[in-house]
Amino acid sequence: MADYKAPLRDMRFVLHEVLNLEDHYQNLGVEELNRELVDAFLEEGAKFAMNELDPLYRSADEEGCQYHNGEVTTPKGFKEAYQKYVEGGWPSMNGDPEYGGQGLPNSAGTAISEMIGTANWAWNMYPGLSHGAVATLESHGTDEQKNTWLPKLVSGEWTGTMCLTEPHCGSDLGLLKTKAEPRDDGSYTITGTKIWISAGEHDMADNIVHIVLARTPGAPEGTKGISLFIVPKFLPDADGNPGQRNDLVCGSIEHKMGIHGNATCVMNFDGAQGFLIGEENKGLNCMFTFMNFARLGTAIQGVAHAERGFQVALDFARERLAMRSLSGPKNPDGPADPVIVHPDVRRMTLTAKAFAEGGRAMTYYASTLGDLVNQGDEEAENLMALLTPIAKAFLTEVGVESAIHGIQVCGGSGYIREWGAEQNLRDAKISTIYEGTTGIQALDLLGRKVLQSQGEQLRVWTKIIHKFCQSLEGDEAMKEFIEPLAARNEEWGNMTMELGQKAMQNPEEVGGASVDYLMYAGYVSLAYFWARMAKTAQEQLDAGTTETAFYQAKIDTARFYFRRLLPRCDAHKGAIEGGLECLMAIEDEHFMF
Amino acid sequence: MADYKAPLRDMRFVLHEVLNLEDHYQNLGVEELNRELVDAFLEEGAKFAMNELDPLYRSADEEGCQYHNGEVTTPKGFKEAYQKYVEGGWPSMNGDPEYGGQGLPNSAGTAISEMIGTANWAWNMYPGLSHGAVATLESHGTDEQKNTWLPKLVSGEWTGTMCLTEPHCGSDLGLLKTKAEPRDDGSYTITGTKIWISAGEHDMADNIVHIVLARTPGAPEGTKGISLFIVPKFLPDADGNPGQRNDLVCGSIEHKMGIHGNATCVMNFDGAQGFLIGEENKGLNCMFTFMNFARLGTAIQGVAHAERGFQVALDFARERLAMRSLSGPKNPDGPADPVIVHPDVRRMTLTAKAFAEGGRAMTYYASTLGDLVNQGDEEAENLMALLTPIAKAFLTEVGVESAIHGIQVCGGSGYIREWGAEQNLRDAKISTIYEGTTGIQALDLLGRKVLQSQGEQLRVWTKIIHKFCQSLEGDEAMKEFIEPLAARNEEWGNMTMELGQKAMQNPEEVGGASVDYLMYAGYVSLAYFWARMAKTAQEQLDAGTTETAFYQAKIDTARFYFRRLLPRCDAHKGAIEGGLECLMAIEDEHFMF
Repeated sequence: MADYKAPLRDMRFVLHEVLNLEDHYQNLGVEELNRELVDAFLEEGAKFAMNELDPLYRSADEEGCQYHNGEVTTPKGFKEAYQKYVEGGWPSMNGDPEYGGQGLPNSAGTAISEMIGTANWAWNMYPGLSHGAVATLESHGTDEQKNTWLPKLVSGEWTGTMCLTEPHCGSDLGLLKTKAEPRDDGSYTITGTKIWISAGEHDMADNIVHIVLARTPGAPEGTKGISLFIVPKFLPDADGNPGQRNDLVCGSIEHKMGIHGNATCVMNFDGAQGFLIGEENKGLNCMFTFMNFARLGTAIQGVAHAERGFQVALDFARERLAMRSLSGPKNPDGPADPVIVHPDVRRMTLTAKAFAEGGRAMTYYASTLGDLVNQGDEEAENLMALLTPIAKAFLTEVGVESAIHGIQVCGGSGYIREWGAEQNLRDAKISTIYEGTTGIQALDLLGRKVLQSQGEQLRVWTKIIHKFCQSLEGDEAMKEFIEPLAARNEEWGNMTMELGQKAMQNPEEVGGASVDYLMYAGYVSLAYFWARMAKTAQEQLDAGTTETAFYQAKIDTARFYFRRLLPRCDAHKGAIEGGLECLMAIEDEHFMF
Repeated sequence: MADYKAPLRDMRFVLHEVLNLEDHYQNLGVEELNRELVDAFLEEGAKFAMNELDPLYRSADEEGCQYHNGEVTTPKGFKEAYQKYVEGGWPSMNGDPEYGGQGLPNSAGTAISEMIGTANWAWNMYPGLSHGAVATLESHGTDEQKNTWLPKLVSGEWTGTMCLTEPHCGSDLGLLKTKAEPRDDGSYTITGTKIWISAGEHDMADNIVHIVLARTPGAPEGTKGISLFIVPKFLPDADGNPGQRNDLVCGSIEHKMGIHGNATCVMNFDGAQGFLIGEENKGLNCMFTFMNFARLGTAIQGVAHAERGFQVALDFARERLAMRSLSGPKNPDGPADPVIVHPDVRRMTLTAKAFAEGGRAMTYYASTLGDLVNQGDEEAENLMALLTPIAKAFLTEVGVESAIHGIQVCGGSGYIREWGAEQNLRDAKISTIYEGTTGIQALDLLGRKVLQSQGEQLRVWTKIIHKFCQSLEGDEAMKEFIEPLAARNEEWGNMTMELGQKAMQNPEEVGGASVDYLMYAGYVSLAYFWARMAKTAQEQLDAGTTETAFYQAKIDTARFYFRRLLPRCDAHKGAIEGGLECLMAIEDEHFMF
């Protein structure tokens, strides 16, 4: 099996050279977070990912989680790795200093999350889910709640979950039925069943703090009657340590396609004690606060699977000997050439590479926006609102594609478990589903963000792309990137106007075009990041860098992206032009005879 | 889990109404194979697939095959189902009557294979692999060999395998090392290790007849020194029954992403007795005889996974309630609308449907060509040679895509094993790899078939499409299909000419364009079949059929294909125009830093 190698050089390129993170942190007022410190974090994160988590990648998949009588045993090594993670202070990086956090901006943790997630996504989900609970409490908890829950969550001693889905509803939370009945002491009695609760039960931490969506008696129907509750596995005692066991239990765990190392739990709340967060019936609003961050986390999962697909393909393609290059032997002393000489093997490997590295730039950029949003920057919030569904859905879709390329390059070996390529696809497929499916993200993008704002939210982004292109007019070296980028950017705007007009006549048009529209948006947005990276690389080459090979490879990959992947926009544009009618014509009963 | 429903109405539509199978059989001289008889076969095949094999779909995946001490136990129920299959006379359908076969044309079994394969691909591979052994022996065996091996293989009492791959070589058979040393009695001693031998060992039949590629002493290097041998698990005794155990053993079975019910074996030949088929060093030629049939069999696997993806999506989409239609409630008395009302759910479901039904027409058509090839028809052979790589690679790629849609429509349920959607993707992914990867098929199509024949082999096909379009000029109802089909057909020819010119300057251009070229070819070819199906349906509607809903749905699906899927040609055309250089620029060591 191919070991994971943290792409540190590429991460530094994106963070320092493309995004100028040091300047960003100065603007944020966290000057202490300089380049050296960021690099030190990266080095340590890489070590943890490669030495502690990657070795458990396959064994955790094989073992899975074991369920017995309400308890879940995680795969061998998970608990120990988590202990080291807590001891290393990783969970507290972004936490509020008032509750023991290090107060670093979110973006400082993005590359770490990527490495940890690429090394072992199933493991990464345990601490990953805690972030949602922490963010929710930080934004909406009372001081007393913060004091009770945050220190242990921030330190990582306890973990958190988000309990949304019920057996009859996933995407449509308005249908949920879990009940929350007020008690005399101001707390609530929570009763109901939640499913697909990632990390809902496990043996890695002393307590698990569930954030649960439920309805109070007489609450309005639909999404306007949902409230949010803290429901811990153990109620804290007077010293704040895990005390009395609460009336909730894990009923079973799911058997899934992948992420076997993460426990996906059915959680039965049988009159558990819960504590309201924020106001009654405002639960969904509270959820949305952190949802963008969770979605960005899933976008990073897309990058993780693209990177893993790329690395497994590259390892195999360099080692495996088969056939001769069509332009003559490249390894004349061997029995055959390494398969990396074959153009189609390169095409698949480069596709995964272009998605991984491009996605890295996109998600790191989005995470710097997140820092600005946390400081109340409204323009950043608008931009983040637009980019989040694009990053989440587009990057997870191309993450799945990249995982498929990883298998395909390895041929039969890719289909055999030993090599690890097939696990990458099995783990990847959930990413287009949870935290809002691709279809949900696409409706969010086109319906809520783009069209409801009369295109205003889109223009924030297309204007950035436009200005970038304008600033490079006459730059001969960049022409091959800037011309198609500018053209696509304009086409995107025109396409949006046409769609807007159609949608005024028939709102269904939004749903008919949405996913193709989102994928189109993804390809154009990624083209912007590839053009920016090419520009940065070109500047280094012009300045006489000694790292010629690195920067030249960047430009070569950008060129590959523009020439071989960006044309996919035409397929999506063509499909959108194909219209809604052909989707709706067949009657439901006539799909099959 | 969604049960498999054999799409009998659609099969009859393709076989009788589109392909006029009865006429075809009259031309072949098998008049007894009339419509009633074909339909009776279909009914019986459907029963067997739905009642005997589909119930084992998930349990076989869960259990997998068990290996112990050289022996393989297949999942519960596999052996019993195989016994019924043999008793039902299914294995002998296409066999030579001289050896107990029913002598029916290959095409008569295609729909049966599809149903059996869709119900349970892992099971289907056991009898499926036998076909290769039978075809090889029928074409290249001596009379004595035929008498010894064919009766038991044709009846299904024994099964067969094809032993090609070795640990160091899959696609590049020229590297294989298994030795065959002549014995005094004219037989050979076979020594070597073969891997990934599907059905190499199992408990379903009394004997297993391996067809093994090996090298005799002093044979030329590469593919010109490969010979073909019969190497049975048990050597037949004087009565032709399994006698002495041969010196070969299954060393282990692989743990794979999917098709768990099929044993993928490491086969160790430790001085086993083998019998030469055909001439020494002509082994690969003998293999090619049956390879087209095996590849067509894998094309059918693509259809199977598309159908299964379609059915699982459709079942879920009709049942699951979530959100309201954007154009107002469609299920006002329920808590939400069934998700099939949402345009994007329809898009995914229709995509799988269009690939399944279109692929059905393509593979059934190809199998009628196969009948003509078996009668020595040279034009059919040329056409089959062209269509085989298209059908194999394109249909398996879109089969994988359809399996992904099947999961995605089901959302979280699609990722959970219980629903069966995720197994469909795990089973499907092997189809783009074995029997020649998509990349190998694409080189075969563009390099060997199209360009080596100076486009002659392509023109056989594009001329058929052209004539079809010409014959419908002025047909207003068909205009929406014929115009884009004719335009794409012409574009295909032009693109081929340009590629031919580039390839003369640099042979690597073939590899750089091949897979995009193949996918382009697949979309245009499928468009031809969809246009033909639309025409047939239109004729029925014009003639006042009572089955209005069926034929209208056919036209609606054709329209969906032309409007929403055919535009993907532009992405592939654009990628081809992107050229080779951007694939080759990066040096092997500079893919990652």
